[in-house]
Amino acid sequence: MIPFLDLKGINAELRDELLEACARVIDSGWYISGSELRAFEQEYAAYCGSRHCIGVANGLDALSLTLRAWIELDRVREGDEVIVPANTYIATLLAITENGLVPVLVEPDNTSFNLSPRSVTSALTRRTRAILPVHLYGRLAAMPELMKIAEQHDLLVLEDAAQGHGASLEGRKAGNWGNAAGFSFYPGKNLGALGDAGAITTSDEELAETLQALRNYGSHVKYRNLYQGLNSRLDEIQAAMLRVKLKHLDEQTAQRRRIARRYLDEIDNAAIRLPEWQREEEHVWHLFVIRCQQRDHLQKQLDRAGVQTMIHYPIAPHKQKAYPQFNHIELPITERIHEEVLSLPMDPSLSPEQVDRVIEAVNRACP
Amino acid sequence: MIPFLDLKGINAELRDELLEACARVIDSGWYISGSELRAFEQEYAAYCGSRHCIGVANGLDALSLTLRAWIELDRVREGDEVIVPANTYIATLLAITENGLVPVLVEPDNTSFNLSPRSVTSALTRRTRAILPVHLYGRLAAMPELMKIAEQHDLLVLEDAAQGHGASLEGRKAGNWGNAAGFSFYPGKNLGALGDAGAITTSDEELAETLQALRNYGSHVKYRNLYQGLNSRLDEIQAAMLRVKLKHLDEQTAQRRRIARRYLDEIDNAAIRLPEWQREEEHVWHLFVIRCQQRDHLQKQLDRAGVQTMIHYPIAPHKQKAYPQFNHIELPITERIHEEVLSLPMDPSLSPEQVDRVIEAVNRACP
Ligand SMILES: Cc1ncc(COP(=O)(O)O)c(/C=N/[C@@H]2[C@@H](O)[C@@H](OP(=O)(O)OP(=O)(O)OC[C@H]3O[C@@H](n4cc(C)c(=O)[nH]c4=O)C[C@@H]3O)O[C@H](C)[C@H]2O)c1O
Ligand SMILES: Cc1ncc(COP(=O)(O)O)c(/C=N/[C@@H]2[C@@H](O)[C@@H](OP(=O)(O)OP(=O)(O)OC[C@H]3O[C@@H](n4cc(C)c(=O)[nH]c4=O)C[C@@H]3O)O[C@H](C)[C@H]2O)c1O
Repeated sequence: MIPFLDLKGINAELRDELLEACARVIDSGWYISGSELRAFEQEYAAYCGSRHCIGVANGLDALSLTLRAWIELDRVREGDEVIVPANTYIATLLAITENGLVPVLVEPDNTSFNLSPRSVTSALTRRTRAILPVHLYGRLAAMPELMKIAEQHDLLVLEDAAQGHGASLEGRKAGNWGNAAGFSFYPGKNLGALGDAGAITTSDEELAETLQALRNYGSHVKYRNLYQGLNSRLDEIQAAMLRVKLKHLDEQTAQRRRIARRYLDEIDNAAIRLPEWQREEEHVWHLFVIRCQQRDHLQKQLDRAGVQTMIHYPIAPHKQKAYPQFNHIELPITERIHEEVLSLPMDPSLSPEQVDRVIEAVNRACP
Repeated sequence: MIPFLDLKGINAELRDELLEACARVIDSGWYISGSELRAFEQEYAAYCGSRHCIGVANGLDALSLTLRAWIELDRVREGDEVIVPANTYIATLLAITENGLVPVLVEPDNTSFNLSPRSVTSALTRRTRAILPVHLYGRLAAMPELMKIAEQHDLLVLEDAAQGHGASLEGRKAGNWGNAAGFSFYPGKNLGALGDAGAITTSDEELAETLQALRNYGSHVKYRNLYQGLNSRLDEIQAAMLRVKLKHLDEQTAQRRRIARRYLDEIDNAAIRLPEWQREEEHVWHLFVIRCQQRDHLQKQLDRAGVQTMIHYPIAPHKQKAYPQFNHIELPITERIHEEVLSLPMDPSLSPEQVDRVIEAVNRACP
C-alpha cells in the first residue's frame, strides 16, 4: 500500500535530531515558555518575513486568539461579520463563532479552491470587519487582490495559513500578507510538530503583545492578569522539535513540488480534473487534490490498487450538525467540491517508483 | 540556595524513562489521540477511582470544557451562577467567565483556605447552578459537606483538582467526589507533565462523551462535527511521560508528607502561622503555605538565608485588571490571605539537610 502520508517514515529519518531535541528539553528543566519557544518564534518569524511570531497550542487557537485580540483592542466587535470561504476545514469557522462573530460564507473560486475576490466584494455589508482567506491545500489565496479590497473598505485580514507554510507570491510568504496569520503545526501539516502546536505571525506590535498575554491566562507578568485570557501555549518540547523540522521544510517543499509536477504532467484520465495553479512558488502542495464526478468509486478503485487517498473534506462546514443555523444555505460550488475532491498521496518521502505506481493506478482507473 | 522546586533534578532522576517514552512516541508515528493517551486516561481514571478520564490540553481547559459540556447538555445555562472560593488561582474564574457564567466569589475558611460550606449556603440564589470547590494547596475541600449541600439544592459540583492529585477523604480521592473534576498537569504540579496538559475525571458517561467531542473540534467521528468545539488535546508525548510520572506519584506524595510533617513539628516562630489539616490522607502538600503579617519582609530574610519561597498568590482574582466588574467587591478574609501567605520549598527531592536548613532559616527569621 502506498500511504497517503508516511509520517512515521518522515520522522524516522530525523529520529536522532528529534530525540536530541527532547533530551535537551528534559535536561533543561524548563518546559513552558522558555528558550526553545523564543528561538522557534524568532526563526519562524524570520522564515515568514514577519516581525513577530507568537507560538500557541494549535492552529484553531491561532485563529481564534487573533480575533479575540482584535476584540480586546476594539478593532472588531461582537456581532461583526467576517468573510470566509465556505470550503475550508471547519476550524476556520470555529475560530469565528467562538468569538461571537458572524461568518459570512462565500463560494470559492472553482479553479483555485480559494476565496474569490469577486465574491468577497459582493458579500460586503456595513457589518463586515474582516476577511479570513484560507491558503487551501497549500495554495496562497489571491492576496494582492484581497489586500486591495481590504484597504479600500478598511477591513482586517487574517490569513488562515494552516496549510500554506512557505507559499509565496511577489516575494512575500504566507503569514506576511494579512494583518496577521494563523498557522497550524498539526503533525500532518507541511511543518508538523509531534503533537499539537500553532502560531500567529504578524508585524503588528500591539497585536503581538496582546496575544502574548491572551495565550497565558491574560498575563504578561506572572500573577498580574490584564485580560480574561486562555491557556494556549506551544510546549518547549514541540518548539524544539519544530526547530529541527523547520530546517528541512524548504527541501521537503521542493520534494512536494517535484511530486506535484509529475502528477500534473503524467496523470491523464478524462474522468479526472487536475488542480491548477499559476506560479510555482505560490503552491506548497500540502495536498494534491484532484476532482472526479465518481469520486467514491475512484477512491475504491485506487484503494484496491494499493493507493491510499483521503477526502478533504467530505462534508462542508455549513452542512455540519454543529451549525444548524447554516444548514439551509445553498452553496453549490462548495457542495460540489465536497462531492468531487480526492487527495492523492503527497508525502515528501515518496520514492519515484511509488509516484509511478500512483500515476499508473490513477490512469488505469475508470470511475 | 535551596530551590522552591527543583524540577530539573526531579525529572533528571527519571531521565532514562522519560527519554524512552519520547522515543517510543517518535517511533510510533502517531502523535495525537493515540494509544499513549488512552493508556494514560485509563491509568489515571483508575488512580482516581472514577469511571472516565478525558485528557485535554491543560488545567484551565479541563474546567472550562466541563462547564461548556454542561451547557451543551443543557444542565447549565448562560448567566447561571457558579459558587467559587475567592482565593484561588485565577484560572478557576477564567473557566467560569469564559462560558458566560457568573462567578459568585465567596470567602474561604480562614484555616483550611478552602471553600467553607457555610458561606456556600449563604451564597445560594435562584440562579445558582453549580459549586466549584478548589482543593487549594493540595488539601481536599470539605467534599462531604459540599456534596450534601449540592444534593439538597440540586447543584452540579465541579472539583478544581489542579493542586490535589491523590488527596482523599473517606477513601475517596480528589476527582471522584463531584460530578466532574478538572486536573492540571502543569510541570510544577504534583503530577506534572513536561509541558502543558490536563484532564477531566468523571463517572458520568454522557458528560465524558460530550467532552471527547468538545476537545476535538466538536467531533467524535473524523470530519463529522456535532458541536462547535475546541482543539484541546493531551499530546501523546506528554501522555507517555505522564505515565512514567504517575508511577512515582504516591512515593513522591509520601515524601511531600514527610517534609510537611517536619515543617509542622519543627518550625517554631511566633510570627508565623503554620497550615492546619486534620487527616493525613486529605492533604498532598502541593504547596506548604505559611502565614505571616510581615510576609514580604520574611520573604526577603529567607531569600538572604538561601531559601527560595513563592507567593500563591500575591493578588486576589477579584482585584485583577482582568475583572474590573469585581474590583470593588470587599472580601477581607481573601484579601488578608493574599497579603500574608508564603510558600516554603516543597519538593519531594529535598534532602533532610535541606529541610533542616529551611526550618532553621524560618525559625531564625524575625520579620
Ligand atoms: C485550514 C485550516 N485551518 C485551521 C486548522 C486547525 O488547525 P489545528 O487546530 O492545528 O488542527 C486546520 C487543520 N487542519 C487539519 C485538517 O485538515 C484535517 O487534516 P487531515 O489531513 O484529515 O489529518 P489526519 O488525517 O489526522 O492526518 C493526515 C495524515 O497523517 C497521518 N498521521 C496523522 C497524525 C495526527 C499522526 O500523528 N500521525 C500520522 O501518521 C494520518 C493521515 O494519513 O484534520 C486535522 C485534525 C486538522 O488538523 C486547517 O486545515
Ligand atoms: C487551582 C488551579 N486551577 C486551575 C489551574 C490551571 O491549570 P493550567 O491551565 O494547567 O495552568 C491551576 C494552575 N496553577 C498554576 C498556578 O498555581 C501557578 O503556579 P506556580 O507555582 O506559580 O508556577 P510556576 O512558578 O510557573 O512553577 C512552579 C515552580 O516550578 C518551576 N518550574 C516551572 C516550570 C513551568 C518549568 O518548566 N520548570 C520549572 O522548574 C518554577 C517554580 O519554582 O502558575 C501556573 C502557571 C499555573 O499552572 C490551579 O492552580
